[in-house]
Amino acid sequence: MKAIKVNKALDEAIPMQEPIKVHEAMRYSLLAGGKFVRPILCMAACEVVGGDESLAIPAACAVEMIHTMSLIHDNLPCMDNDDLRHGKPTNHKVFGENTAVLAGDALLSLAFEHVATKTRNVTPQRVVQAIGELGLAVGSGVLVAGQIVDLASEGKQVSLTELEYIHHHKTGKLLEAAVVCEAIMGGGNEEDVEKLRSYARCIGLLFQVVDDILDVTKSSDELRKTAGKDLMTDKATYPKLMGIEKARQFAGELMAKAMDELSYFDAAKAAPLYHIANYIACHQN
Amino acid sequence: MKAIKVNKALDEAIPMQEPIKVHEAMRYSLLAGGKFVRPILCMAACEVVGGDESLAIPAACAVEMIHTMSLIHDNLPCMDNDDLRHGKPTNHKVFGENTAVLAGDALLSLAFEHVATKTRNVTPQRVVQAIGELGLAVGSGVLVAGQIVDLASEGKQVSLTELEYIHHHKTGKLLEAAVVCEAIMGGGNEEDVEKLRSYARCIGLLFQVVDDILDVTKSSDELRKTAGKDLMTDKATYPKLMGIEKARQFAGELMAKAMDELSYFDAAKAAPLYHIANYIACHQN
Repeated sequence: MKAIKVNKALDEAIPMQEPIKVHEAMRYSLLAGGKFVRPILCMAACEVVGGDESLAIPAACAVEMIHTMSLIHDNLPCMDNDDLRHGKPTNHKVFGENTAVLAGDALLSLAFEHVATKTRNVTPQRVVQAIGELGLAVGSGVLVAGQIVDLASEGKQVSLTELEYIHHHKTGKLLEAAVVCEAIMGGGNEEDVEKLRSYARCIGLLFQVVDDILDVTKSSDELRKTAGKDLMTDKATYPKLMGIEKARQFAGELMAKAMDELSYFDAAKAAPLYHIANYIACHQN
Repeated sequence: MKAIKVNKALDEAIPMQEPIKVHEAMRYSLLAGGKFVRPILCMAACEVVGGDESLAIPAACAVEMIHTMSLIHDNLPCMDNDDLRHGKPTNHKVFGENTAVLAGDALLSLAFEHVATKTRNVTPQRVVQAIGELGLAVGSGVLVAGQIVDLASEGKQVSLTELEYIHHHKTGKLLEAAVVCEAIMGGGNEEDVEKLRSYARCIGLLFQVVDDILDVTKSSDELRKTAGKDLMTDKATYPKLMGIEKARQFAGELMAKAMDELSYFDAAKAAPLYHIANYIACHQN
């Protein structure tokens, strides 16, 4: 239900228009049949602090736009040089490198424009604050920093601290910003924000640990991507650095901490956030 | 004086920090010894509607960050493939393609973050409105659209209408957004905004016409870039499409219209905006 609403909002946010090619490219990656975990998380964060989900949708779309931009740019030949993502050709493979760069740029700027112009029934002060949080999460100190350090670390021996830096900056911080953003939109107070920030930090890390474990334990066919690719290209992963058992144990600890943060909220309202943490812990793809 | 303030604000907006490489790359292009025409225009627009220049500086920095991002990405090998800009090696030549893409992304997101978090003494409502204007100017319908159409038109016969579309979208609209943004920050009313929007449209076009004229009349040494490059690569220019005399006449008409829009404002306060139009009409570099 929430995924359908997000899909509709994203579809409407980028209508097909001239120049066709760049809009097609933006829509190709944005509406690529993703499960919209981030936007659904956004809406749940807004609701747990008592906000209506309608307050959350523009920022939820923005988070998905930013995430998509980072995938499009990270897949470029000059970056990770990926031909496939979830079994589909990557953006530059279909539309060419120049269109892929520009589609990413357009998604990034649309994200901010969208929050600024489409958010309704939230005080402008909260909207400005939310935009600041989102901007910070993409910037040179965070998402971009993670990718830079990731690129620099390829083929090198990476410590656990460095690996955590990369994941926290490339993935975790955007989840954190998304959740914080929506706690602001939903009218949350400072304590709400801090509890949700910690929850988001745990599930962000959890997602990566589980993904790394899957990567070494599943076959290529099941994953619809090249299994073991991270190991082959000598990329650092949790199982490689701590062993598979320790990695599983770490995932369990993260899950427990996420649950603990949620116990602060009304149990019924927090149910979707429990569900998301579970979904991440068990994700098969 | 204004340029020094802008330089200081930009310098402070991106301190050198880890990861060093991406911050170095951002600073390299942002503080590349430009004359900061756009930020100075921003401050003048804020002042002509009665605002203090301090209200204008964060958005003025944002406009320069967006402009710099578009240059870095446009210069990439998959785009215009430029090795030099104003006699200096382009960003990807110095830092590599992947860092150049990421430095552009970081500048774009910093632009929005900077306006949201650094603007002081402006109502949040006006800040949100200004962010919406800026976002619109970069998006898939405008700046990105201009670059897409520009890339698609290379080597083809381009009509005057198409040429105007390209310039208006690649250059003009950002100037317009910059000026409108600052009229909003400065407390301007709707009529102020519309007069300034028209002024900005004229000088944006003027800038391009003058640049095109210069490109065919100056030697490579004077321009510090490859003179006649646009002609050689078969790029459409105003002199090529209308002849050099008609292009000069067109420049004169644009100048006259820009002056006319300014006559609505207090002459003393509008003086910097007159000066900028003159500067553009006579620019030698």
